[in-house]
Amino acid sequence: MEHFESLFNPKSVAVVGASNALEKWGAGVFSSVLRTSKVEKLYPVNNRTDEVQGVKTYPSVRDLPEQVDFVAIVVPFNSVLDVVKDCVARGVKSALVITAGLGETGSEGAKLQEEIVRTAREGSLRLVGPNCMGHFNTTNNFSTVRGGGMSLEKGNIGVISESGGFAGHILQCGAEMGVGFSKFVSTGNEADLHFEDFFEYYAQDEETKVITAYIEGLREGSRFFKIAREITKTKPVVVVKVGRTKAGVRAAKSHTSAIAGSDNVYDAMFKQSGVIRVDEVEELFDVASGLLHMPIPRGRRVAILTFGGGFGCVTADACERLGLEVAQLSPHTIEALNQVLPERWPHANPVDMVGFGEVTYPCLWPLIEDDNIDSVIVIGGIGQMGMMRRMARFRHDSFEEQDAPPSFLEQAEEAIKAREEEEKKNLTKLYDYMAKYNKPVVTFNRHASRMKDVPVFNELKENGIMIYPTPERAAKVLSHLAAYGEYLKS
Amino acid sequence: MEHFESLFNPKSVAVVGASNALEKWGAGVFSSVLRTSKVEKLYPVNNRTDEVQGVKTYPSVRDLPEQVDFVAIVVPFNSVLDVVKDCVARGVKSALVITAGLGETGSEGAKLQEEIVRTAREGSLRLVGPNCMGHFNTTNNFSTVRGGGMSLEKGNIGVISESGGFAGHILQCGAEMGVGFSKFVSTGNEADLHFEDFFEYYAQDEETKVITAYIEGLREGSRFFKIAREITKTKPVVVVKVGRTKAGVRAAKSHTSAIAGSDNVYDAMFKQSGVIRVDEVEELFDVASGLLHMPIPRGRRVAILTFGGGFGCVTADACERLGLEVAQLSPHTIEALNQVLPERWPHANPVDMVGFGEVTYPCLWPLIEDDNIDSVIVIGGIGQMGMMRRMARFRHDSFEEQDAPPSFLEQAEEAIKAREEEEKKNLTKLYDYMAKYNKPVVTFNRHASRMKDVPVFNELKENGIMIYPTPERAAKVLSHLAAYGEYLKS
Repeated sequence: MEHFESLFNPKSVAVVGASNALEKWGAGVFSSVLRTSKVEKLYPVNNRTDEVQGVKTYPSVRDLPEQVDFVAIVVPFNSVLDVVKDCVARGVKSALVITAGLGETGSEGAKLQEEIVRTAREGSLRLVGPNCMGHFNTTNNFSTVRGGGMSLEKGNIGVISESGGFAGHILQCGAEMGVGFSKFVSTGNEADLHFEDFFEYYAQDEETKVITAYIEGLREGSRFFKIAREITKTKPVVVVKVGRTKAGVRAAKSHTSAIAGSDNVYDAMFKQSGVIRVDEVEELFDVASGLLHMPIPRGRRVAILTFGGGFGCVTADACERLGLEVAQLSPHTIEALNQVLPERWPHANPVDMVGFGEVTYPCLWPLIEDDNIDSVIVIGGIGQMGMMRRMARFRHDSFEEQDAPPSFLEQAEEAIKAREEEEKKNLTKLYDYMAKYNKPVVTFNRHASRMKDVPVFNELKENGIMIYPTPERAAKVLSHLAAYGEYLKS
Repeated sequence: MEHFESLFNPKSVAVVGASNALEKWGAGVFSSVLRTSKVEKLYPVNNRTDEVQGVKTYPSVRDLPEQVDFVAIVVPFNSVLDVVKDCVARGVKSALVITAGLGETGSEGAKLQEEIVRTAREGSLRLVGPNCMGHFNTTNNFSTVRGGGMSLEKGNIGVISESGGFAGHILQCGAEMGVGFSKFVSTGNEADLHFEDFFEYYAQDEETKVITAYIEGLREGSRFFKIAREITKTKPVVVVKVGRTKAGVRAAKSHTSAIAGSDNVYDAMFKQSGVIRVDEVEELFDVASGLLHMPIPRGRRVAILTFGGGFGCVTADACERLGLEVAQLSPHTIEALNQVLPERWPHANPVDMVGFGEVTYPCLWPLIEDDNIDSVIVIGGIGQMGMMRRMARFRHDSFEEQDAPPSFLEQAEEAIKAREEEEKKNLTKLYDYMAKYNKPVVTFNRHASRMKDVPVFNELKENGIMIYPTPERAAKVLSHLAAYGEYLKS
């Protein structure tokens, strides 16, 4: 673990290949590290210039004024071995090799890569990569990812990626959806440290509460599944594993020389060890965030509460297609809903409020209370105040164009204020219900993936209510959570 | 067709139930019509106030100073029959009934609804709805949809929706994705005019080049399929049809009393009549836009061109999962790519440019030329200049914080300008290739659903190159288009 400590929490760092040339990785990586908070010493290594980004350079690692914990290597592939030798000579504990052009390029590159690894290991130096895109730790803002300054939120989701470029996509997807990250690593060719090493490290890392991963092919499959079986009962693991198809297997093989292996075997192993497998990156974070914030549903029976019938139909279809059950309402619940809804409501699940979006909360209470219901999908009505204000403003503006009386907006403002106060009360009650009944309540907002800066979005999330951008994505999360719940009970 | 002319292209309109009260539909519907351009006469009908939104009211349709073509009815359900009688008395040709609380509420409401329809038909008045949310025609900006002012783009995609509330969602999804609409109608209870009537009208409507629909249950299934068989060869039809599952069927039944019927029968009929069925609203417009702008692929063989291997794996998996074939490159293509790419490229499809995103265009030409390839998915590299400028700005800003030399941005600006000019040349060549080879080229940008105002996005689209927000969505569109191509050939 000492190596991982130096990797994710170094006191002193050198970047070999640090550069002033905008277009070079060496510029971006150094800039990222430079902007981190807890690195006490940072040395750019470059033998062709005196300063990089305003910091004095050293011609090589051997010339550094002190021993450093960690070195990022961003030099041409045929110089990596020399840099590694320098690192060993100066007792560096860990290094990350961004450089591509080694093991993934054929037998010659592989031979050179082997020599690099042998040299490192003989000198007790552990390596990440080569052919990777960096790593970060949000606890101390330490990042070797180019453009690492993209405002990554601190949080409890850890990411391990067997792809570099795709990892950037993964991180950006998560960032947009408001995901908070703990640690990230792009494992590259895994010449020395394997996916499984990081997996084991994350398993015991307290900042990481959910592990997510992009996997092309596991080098130590049985070790992975051993670790998974031990931790998934307490720390959920969600993965995208490519190679579902023959074309995917071939592509993975030529990408990181990963042997994707038989997909059936992988799939069975994931199921047996409680690893949640998803197909797409969006789904990865939908599920991970859901696991982080929501309780696990006791079963597959879902209630759908909707302000419109069309949404009810689409959501019911999605639920059943995804292996959930559109729950049968108890007579008691139907009775309670009769008190709130006009007579023409369908008296069944989906609970169509037939246009009466104002009664979402009164309808929600009996559904959460109902023992026949394990989770609730709410279409519209929760935390919609911001939306309502915009709508009123918009309508007012339309009227205004026609010289309509200016009292419209005042009217609207009053109505909105009254409803905002009512909503606050309802939200307080909802949070109490969440604590008492411990059932997932998910809701839908088409703008969910752009709402990370909307206060009510975060307030809802912190209180266990997740917002997803389509009803289908909400249903998919509940389906994964229900399956995970069954694994936990097994 | 005279009725449809009065419905979508009225010269004179009355809104019964027009209101000044912000929260009422009667205010929103009237406001929408008021703001339309080609309605010569508009009368608010309201017997309790003299003016609505600044326009003189009349107490009833009978009191209007002239006969009007079209009436929108937004009154309580027990007043609809009287309004319809008034309309008949004054020779109105068509009316749209927003009002809910009729046929969908049970036997009593159904009886009243029947009487309304009988009265209308006896008086040669055709009705849309009741229980619908309006309609629009972008050709003359005529809209009865509340909030109809949400800037809808003119275009060639027609929408028919059997749900009201969900139709709003559909339109907003489309609008965000930059879809241009021709006509829209929410059919409601279909008491008089059925889905099939609108379908037939759109089939011959010149502004509508692709018909999209949300269907809960068809009242005249065999008529629908007869029309479909006649038009899908020249005008594509894309539908979301709920009721894939038992829960969906139940939900649809209670929503618009639609008999969703056996899904297997529907599915078979859609296939036999060339109707493209999709599962989600996003997919509806992905496919419709693709059909509008792209050529139909000759087959299922796809080339994947990617700047990173991870994307290649994910996309290859998605293609094969969706019934596409990851094409085998011809020896000639491999040879051509060898000239452009470093030796370590995988020499196979997906074509991983191993980080050399700059060579996207030179790699693209041989792929488009290859007879073994029916369509190309490009991950990154086309029309990315805007993105690049932002990246440079961002990196410059990061450096600046550290007092890095100010020459960075100048450096970057020069590089960007040079590449912009190169890109322009490449795009011109690409458009020539598109015209010559007539193969779909789709590309991917995570922000695609927010790019409708980015000029290059529209330029690409107009030239037949579609941008989708995930590789999976791009693959899905190609899969639907390939199946449609097979239908066209059959």
